Amino acid sequence: MTEKIALTPATHTAPPAKFSHGVKKGNILQVAGQVGFLPAVAGQAPTPAGPTLREQTLQTFANVKAILEEGGASWDDVMMMRVYLTDVDHFAEMNQIYNQYFEEQGLTAPPSARTTVYVGLPAGLLIEIDALAVLG
Amino acid sequence: MTEKIALTPATHTAPPAKFSHGVKKGNILQVAGQVGFLPAVAGQAPTPAGPTLREQTLQTFANVKAILEEGGASWDDVMMMRVYLTDVDHFAEMNQIYNQYFEEQGLTAPPSARTTVYVGLPAGLLIEIDALAVLG
Amino acid sequence: MTEKIALTPATHTAPPAKFSHGVKKGNILQVAGQVGFLPAVAGQAPTPAGPTLREQTLQTFANVKAILEEGGASWDDVMMMRVYLTDVDHFAEMNQIYNQYFEEQGLTAPPSARTTVYVGLPAGLLIEIDALAVLG
Repeated sequence: MTEKIALTPATHTAPPAKFSHGVKKGNILQVAGQVGFLPAVAGQAPTPAGPTLREQTLQTFANVKAILEEGGASWDDVMMMRVYLTDVDHFAEMNQIYNQYFEEQGLTAPPSARTTVYVGLPAGLLIEIDALAVLG
Repeated sequence: MTEKIALTPATHTAPPAKFSHGVKKGNILQVAGQVGFLPAVAGQAPTPAGPTLREQTLQTFANVKAILEEGGASWDDVMMMRVYLTDVDHFAEMNQIYNQYFEEQGLTAPPSARTTVYVGLPAGLLIEIDALAVLG
Repeated sequence: MTEKIALTPATHTAPPAKFSHGVKKGNILQVAGQVGFLPAVAGQAPTPAGPTLREQTLQTFANVKAILEEGGASWDDVMMMRVYLTDVDHFAEMNQIYNQYFEEQGLTAPPSARTTVYVGLPAGLLIEIDALAVLG
């Protein structure tokens, strides 16, 4: 029996319901939908990194990465990222931030596949990202 | 060669197109997007459990669970649930229903990861959920 | 260490950002969100197959299939397809196209699971599809 492990970085705010920020079982690692919340501060409600797409996107990447690392994985292991934006007009800017970020990460494997769609998100949030990784 | 098996609970209404309610191959089990349709009645069109979020969410959970069980899996094997709501104002209520449901299920492994986004759904449907499970 | 391989059919237009059209690692193959872009023409911007749902859906299927084949997979290996439409009124027509297409493909395994939701897409695009396959 392969154990299923919850991945809960110390910096993360508590999920708003009974789900895990990330889980790992065997060589499969799944990251829950992350948004641009800053590291948790005890007694404070979750707070986005800022109102701009850039601030929220970079914080969202940091939040996804923390979960990957908690599970012993890296961006190189990511197979699929789902990017949820609220506004089609943010696509070009998100891609620019995305490209610069992943260039800086120094990937050694081919980049992940990706799907980007435009949905509704809670007020104040401009981006949400989840990820599926295969380790090993 | 690992066989790919369709998971088709007897209670489920026929899919509206050539897709499977669930498939299993090796240790991977994928549940298709489920909605709050009541168990199928011969000669009747698929009917939601009721107009409320609570009725539809609980029926949707039952429909996902039936597919997991058809494949020899349980909620404990679920790595990722995608929750599609039509209205951001339903988030708090859905989480309440979600938490109560999974408390009652008596999970023995960490809860699944989750992403919730707000999309359009066919008229009358308030929630859709799909799930990825890893067995073994 | 299992190698992660990018799947890049020669006919595909370059992704608009640093992501792969498809990736394969071990027995897992992930196809990025595909739209109805015609085969790439050097020096030309990506162009949809046509304005209609039928043209775009069939071209999208062709684009997904090319990535599957690049990775040594076929429709029979697909576990999950996510279909993103922009308009609930397109559901019936998409299902008709979907059923006819997969009948013609002569699947030998049960059809994939599927989730269909209604989201925003870039102007002129009516459908986007991604896919998860398990090989072997």
